[in-house]
Amino acid sequence: MPVESRSFDVGTRGRTEVINITEQVTRYVQESRVQDGTVTVFVVGSTAGITTTEYEPGLVTRDLKAAFEKIAPERGEYLHEQTWHDDNGHSHVRASLLGPSLTLPIVEGKMPLGTWQQIILIDFDTRPRTRRVIVQLVGG
Amino acid sequence: MPVESRSFDVGTRGRTEVINITEQVTRYVQESRVQDGTVTVFVVGSTAGITTTEYEPGLVTRDLKAAFEKIAPERGEYLHEQTWHDDNGHSHVRASLLGPSLTLPIVEGKMPLGTWQQIILIDFDTRPRTRRVIVQLVGG
Amino acid sequence: MPVESRSFDVGTRGRTEVINITEQVTRYVQESRVQDGTVTVFVVGSTAGITTTEYEPGLVTRDLKAAFEKIAPERGEYLHEQTWHDDNGHSHVRASLLGPSLTLPIVEGKMPLGTWQQIILIDFDTRPRTRRVIVQLVGG
Repeated sequence: MPVESRSFDVGTRGRTEVINITEQVTRYVQESRVQDGTVTVFVVGSTAGITTTEYEPGLVTRDLKAAFEKIAPERGEYLHEQTWHDDNGHSHVRASLLGPSLTLPIVEGKMPLGTWQQIILIDFDTRPRTRRVIVQLVGG
Repeated sequence: MPVESRSFDVGTRGRTEVINITEQVTRYVQESRVQDGTVTVFVVGSTAGITTTEYEPGLVTRDLKAAFEKIAPERGEYLHEQTWHDDNGHSHVRASLLGPSLTLPIVEGKMPLGTWQQIILIDFDTRPRTRRVIVQLVGG
Repeated sequence: MPVESRSFDVGTRGRTEVINITEQVTRYVQESRVQDGTVTVFVVGSTAGITTTEYEPGLVTRDLKAAFEKIAPERGEYLHEQTWHDDNGHSHVRASLLGPSLTLPIVEGKMPLGTWQQIILIDFDTRPRTRRVIVQLVGG
């Protein structure tokens, strides 16, 4: 049973930018020998996360951000910022809540995503970043 | 090492309904050849999610809903709704935050859930849906 | 392809205490035969969760707690508490939102965590607990 490790880098603008990474992950699944198993998508770092959404402008440019702004406001008070003279306390909190990892099934060579369901990376940091995404395929 | 893909459909009423799917997942684990490995439970679609909770009426009919209502109010303003003349912007936001997938260990043929810990599907959409759940078993 | 199940217990004080479990998980990864695959870290019980963060005092003693307090306030009203004459309704809600499980890749014998990214257990219960953590390694 094969295990395949793939990875790619993605440039982001930060500030809760939502990036559609479905195409890249789908390509790795198609190229791999894994017909049935799982794919784990993991972003390295403590100020970004992975989940799914319908990738359309309303959700990705405004509605998701508004929810994270409620949970951890950009201009809130963070002990992290006082300690480190930093401005990304909210970025850390949002990333921990969302989580850095998503595991999806691979069934007959495909991820069974819904029609309106895309895999996204959200970068919560306060500056542009280059993010490393690990795509781990396990199965047979 | 076997990989086994199972799936089932579940009818929901939507509106952040919480459905206990532990029995179905447990049956698949018991029926499978996987004695040690992982089970990934994934719901297809962008307005539902998977997690665990103590499945008792207070939490599942009121307390969990109240928290999601704080994060993404049903009657809030969503650009998603303005764009698509839809009413489920909050459903998408809640689902992305919770995530569509949960991976649990299988140890000696069993999931080591706590006594008061059940696997749940939460359907955030605003109408009844039939949900497809994929249960992916990987191990040996 | 091996599957290895490890576990450990950790004593907590509860009340959204954040505990760094990176060292323990790293040791299991180093000791295992799995060079490439995944590691699933799962906490048993419905009032605790697993994620990653930068483990520094500001985030772990204050900022993460503040966000969970917004989502599910400790002194809020919970039907769970009225039903069971309990005081941990907020603990259950916080745990369900965070999730009990995290899956990370293992690449060339290591978890590719960021420099400032640690694996944490958050115990949301209202009293000290002993938590069982299952570390499931799958791969080759």
